Amino acid sequence: MRGCPYGTHRVIEPKGVLPQTAVKIDNTMEIYDNEILIDVKTLNIDSASFTQIKEQAGGDVEKIKEIMLNIVKERGKHQNPVTGSGGMLIGVVEKIGKDLEGKIDLKVGDKIATLVSLSLTPLRIDKILNVKKDIDQVDIEGKAILFESGIYAKLPDDMPETLALAALDVAGAPAQTAKLVKPGDYVLILGAAGKSGLLCCYEAKKRAGVTGKVIGFARPGEAAERLKKTNFCDVVIEGDATQPVEVLNKVLEYTGGRYVDIAINVVNVPNTEMATILPVRDNGIVYFFSMATSFTKAALGAEGVGKDVNMIIGNGYTKGHAEITLQVLRESQILREIFESIYA
Amino acid sequence: MRGCPYGTHRVIEPKGVLPQTAVKIDNTMEIYDNEILIDVKTLNIDSASFTQIKEQAGGDVEKIKEIMLNIVKERGKHQNPVTGSGGMLIGVVEKIGKDLEGKIDLKVGDKIATLVSLSLTPLRIDKILNVKKDIDQVDIEGKAILFESGIYAKLPDDMPETLALAALDVAGAPAQTAKLVKPGDYVLILGAAGKSGLLCCYEAKKRAGVTGKVIGFARPGEAAERLKKTNFCDVVIEGDATQPVEVLNKVLEYTGGRYVDIAINVVNVPNTEMATILPVRDNGIVYFFSMATSFTKAALGAEGVGKDVNMIIGNGYTKGHAEITLQVLRESQILREIFESIYA
Ligand SMILES: NC(=O)c1ccc[n+]([C@@H]2O[C@H](COP(=O)([O-])OP(=O)(O)OC[C@H]3O[C@@H](n4cnc5c(N)ncnc54)[C@H](OP(=O)(O)O)[C@@H]3O)[C@@H](O)[C@H]2O)c1
Ligand SMILES: NC(=O)c1ccc[n+]([C@@H]2O[C@H](COP(=O)([O-])OP(=O)(O)OC[C@H]3O[C@@H](n4cnc5c(N)ncnc54)[C@H](OP(=O)(O)O)[C@@H]3O)[C@@H](O)[C@H]2O)c1
Repeated sequence: MRGCPYGTHRVIEPKGVLPQTAVKIDNTMEIYDNEILIDVKTLNIDSASFTQIKEQAGGDVEKIKEIMLNIVKERGKHQNPVTGSGGMLIGVVEKIGKDLEGKIDLKVGDKIATLVSLSLTPLRIDKILNVKKDIDQVDIEGKAILFESGIYAKLPDDMPETLALAALDVAGAPAQTAKLVKPGDYVLILGAAGKSGLLCCYEAKKRAGVTGKVIGFARPGEAAERLKKTNFCDVVIEGDATQPVEVLNKVLEYTGGRYVDIAINVVNVPNTEMATILPVRDNGIVYFFSMATSFTKAALGAEGVGKDVNMIIGNGYTKGHAEITLQVLRESQILREIFESIYA
Repeated sequence: MRGCPYGTHRVIEPKGVLPQTAVKIDNTMEIYDNEILIDVKTLNIDSASFTQIKEQAGGDVEKIKEIMLNIVKERGKHQNPVTGSGGMLIGVVEKIGKDLEGKIDLKVGDKIATLVSLSLTPLRIDKILNVKKDIDQVDIEGKAILFESGIYAKLPDDMPETLALAALDVAGAPAQTAKLVKPGDYVLILGAAGKSGLLCCYEAKKRAGVTGKVIGFARPGEAAERLKKTNFCDVVIEGDATQPVEVLNKVLEYTGGRYVDIAINVVNVPNTEMATILPVRDNGIVYFFSMATSFTKAALGAEGVGKDVNMIIGNGYTKGHAEITLQVLRESQILREIFESIYA
């Protein structure tokens, strides 16, 4: 039997919507003829989601496991009901539906990372083996399904799997940064010391060039120090991205009053919309990649201060995003070392 | 005493954020030296918000009043806690802070519409006089405050106030449509028969021209029939915007398989993100104006189906948006008549 390429055939509630929008999907592991069955090894939980789960669990690993199992039991997928977001996974191709066999570049046994969100991926967790609290990764025994329209990447053999997983989780961010930043641009990156932050800073500097400026904004601490050492940023400003006026003043102080051309938000906590909007010049670009972004806070907040800026919703996908992101890790020795020290 | 131009001096909770983000602001009506006091006449509640309130009240006018009064009592502003959105207001300038006097083009007694959201405007409601359930407008006795950075428009004297209020409430939508649509574009407008929908259809046709196509999508009914009669659209397709695959198929059937260049969402109910995304071509534009848009549903939904589209958050403000919108009502006799029949 053939399913809808987008997976509507597995939506239980509400009817007619796509799996990401659904509150419950069917996670039975008999595949349709145009689906792929994956034997899952590791989940990479979206940072905004994992931050929320850790907080709810008070940091307790057993509670984290319980929350995760309950989410999948209730929804048939790992979609955090508070943040709405998912993450992605790596695993081994176990079975390919007969309508897809031979038509795609995958065979049984291939190691892949899914590039669609866990928030729409049918998932069954049989056992949680290991919760790596500091890097948002969770090793499990379980199965998942990829729809016909679902995208994936074969894992490269020149880097550890968990490293590739970490980078691919946020592949949209550096790829979009590469598209948006032009030579001479002043670029502000909020959450610059995080995973996507580091990738975006590297990519932004490469594009903005010597005539541009990359301003990294990060919470004070070890990660900020590490970012400074990379020299990706022309300056690293320390502070709290939930305090918009403070962020604005610090940025303008550094630039001597010039507003930035582009601000990129890769923070993983709520209420950072206005700190991203205020420092941007009229007709500049505000790029929200954070899953903790509120649509109304951005739309009405910008209006509220009369800011004529172009605000973009960070699409997790853009053409070639996986290749671009893995390439960055090959290109930059410093980045590779940092990612290896954390994720490998 | 002088307040922050953005109004942070009135934020009670949480500290440091801007008034739109705040859950509670100070609505005492003694103004700071850089604030403006307005004697409020009518509120125009945001459509997504008013739809939610009406639903919660089961359509009962007394319950609607109670919900509205409670929102303002709790928050010091009319911000719907479910949708996060506000609306705008018209009223008469009652007092101008001494730091602003003479420096702005307003004097006491001027009739104005605020162009910043009610979700950040300090408001006191003394009495609700009249709830106009069908047009989202509520006459009140009360006061409001405009911050120094707040934008406003003097009410034109060539049209009824409530008509100007209705149009100005959604001024961002036609102004952005004018900027985005290029000659020859195929444009899909979801919620085309609504207030912003009509304005956007008119503006889109003007820009797309004879070589372009404007596809209006609306729920079957009186409003859809009215839209057809305007001839703003090359076609009006009837259906339900919460059913993405259905919308996609109907659009492709009309275009003969060509995906659209731009989709504009001006619907007032949740779960219409994917119907907006699916019919758009690669590298096309998805413009979300609806306040019922979910950031994560858009970002992860697009990724989930591997759609490389540029998704824009509908900024309520863009330069000249009030003038552009009022001009449309002067330019188009049909539009003017429809708006007068509903709102005047
Ligand atoms: N659009 C998409 O498709 C997509 C896909 C994947 C991920 N995402 C989103 O992208 C965001 C970043 O993900 P990630 O994996 O890069 O997360 P990450 O590595 O955890 O980085 C987040 C960074 O934000 C910093 N931060 C937190 N609160 C802050 C504050 N108040 N002020 C300044 N900085 C603050 C964190 O600092 P500390 O370490 O000090 O807390 C951290 O460095 C997340 O919101 C995630 O949900 C989006
Ligand atoms: N970004 C901003 O700054 C900003 C400012 C103002 C307003 N807005 C938002 O813009 C949106 C439109 O506002 P508006 O004042 O133009 O609202 P409106 O006049 O109520 O129009 C909404 C339209 O959507 C239609 N609709 C509802 N459910 C539908 C469905 N399932 N399928 C197809 N059509 C459907 C409605 O049809 P029925 O009449 O049959 O229900 C109506 O024609 C709202 O979400 C509002 O919150 C945004």
